Amino acid sequence: MRKRNLETCFSPALYEPDRHAGSIVVVIDILRATSAICTAFENGAASIIPVATVAEAREYKEKGYLVAAERDGYVLDFADFGNSPFNFTHERVAGKTITYSTTNGTGIIKLASSAQHIIIASFLNIGAITEWIISHDNDVILFCSGWKNRFNLEDSLCAGAIAERLLESSFFSTICDSTHAAADLWSLAKNDPVGYIEKAAQRSRLRDKNLDDCIPFCLSMDFTQKIPIIKDGVLVPTDK
Amino acid sequence: MRKRNLETCFSPALYEPDRHAGSIVVVIDILRATSAICTAFENGAASIIPVATVAEAREYKEKGYLVAAERDGYVLDFADFGNSPFNFTHERVAGKTITYSTTNGTGIIKLASSAQHIIIASFLNIGAITEWIISHDNDVILFCSGWKNRFNLEDSLCAGAIAERLLESSFFSTICDSTHAAADLWSLAKNDPVGYIEKAAQRSRLRDKNLDDCIPFCLSMDFTQKIPIIKDGVLVPTDK
Repeated sequence: MRKRNLETCFSPALYEPDRHAGSIVVVIDILRATSAICTAFENGAASIIPVATVAEAREYKEKGYLVAAERDGYVLDFADFGNSPFNFTHERVAGKTITYSTTNGTGIIKLASSAQHIIIASFLNIGAITEWIISHDNDVILFCSGWKNRFNLEDSLCAGAIAERLLESSFFSTICDSTHAAADLWSLAKNDPVGYIEKAAQRSRLRDKNLDDCIPFCLSMDFTQKIPIIKDGVLVPTDK
Repeated sequence: MRKRNLETCFSPALYEPDRHAGSIVVVIDILRATSAICTAFENGAASIIPVATVAEAREYKEKGYLVAAERDGYVLDFADFGNSPFNFTHERVAGKTITYSTTNGTGIIKLASSAQHIIIASFLNIGAITEWIISHDNDVILFCSGWKNRFNLEDSLCAGAIAERLLESSFFSTICDSTHAAADLWSLAKNDPVGYIEKAAQRSRLRDKNLDDCIPFCLSMDFTQKIPIIKDGVLVPTDK
């Protein structure tokens, strides 16, 4: 049996669309976008529309949508709330379509448009996503969102945690140095992810803005079985 | 005292020239360019002219220079030898100016042209280069050459080994996730770098072409005290 190929990309600036046409692209942005999206679906959101610009987010607001929108950690004045997963409560989001403003995320979705599937991963749905990936017959690229095109630790750790499970499954092999590095970093962090992430730059940025209360939650596993997947440019939940 | 800033860049595609104007750029390409360059200077080479294209390398050959030139692991027919450090023997290179054909390397030198200093690092000169860096008063960016813009393990390990020493020196601090990751990967590899690098993609590529005999040498420390530095586009040796 041919083993399926597993790769990891540490930054949008390193993504090679032609190499991953037909693959499953697993988008990871632990602090905080993909953690927030997983939380929203667990709490009953119907769908999430990712938009790139503030102007687009405002247009959706004017049409009556719920809008989650921040810039540099501050909630935009017309938005309903910011991007912390704690904002996406059942009371607020159940049954709703939410517009989520994310410059980085929409860029990634565009970059990955040649993929067979684009799914959203975080520690919060790691068990479900691993099972979903194994049950589909494609090569896989773990796509770390990074920060302003830079490598970051928290996304790499999640990639490493997913890689560890996929490689243990015997369906996958890798000759990708980034995947080995991510798995090795995860091996160092797995006993205490919250402690490990103390040194991450994004951890300091969120602390400086008093937005760090969600970090232990974002590093916890299996809060949900939902797998957010892109259909026609919109995120909808599927189950494993 | 202000601590000097230490950062790491995992790929030319991630380099931000404006952020590193005035810094020391430390170029790392362990398998095999920067290991070969360090070896050449230890064996008495006078200078090394990096050139980007085969045509340029051929022109230098016609002018009477020694030329080291490979493409995809194969020595070009007009060249004197290929890019293995073992080719740069005292008998061949002492007192000579060598032309070294390296598409990736010349691209990196161009990218880093806003830097205060561009120096060449490998495990072979790690002790000397660390002392040289500490004795200069600039911020530092460890620039991993990677492979076709991809992250690679061997350059990251060397960046991690240098980072460990610089951070221990008390002159440096870092808020760079790539630097933390490199140092952590080095902590896993340091007791057996040759064993660790077995999983690296470049290790397989070199094995497939019977070019892997130099790997244990390239991962050994302190073969030389020479520090190759760029002056007017040409590499010359300096001492710590």
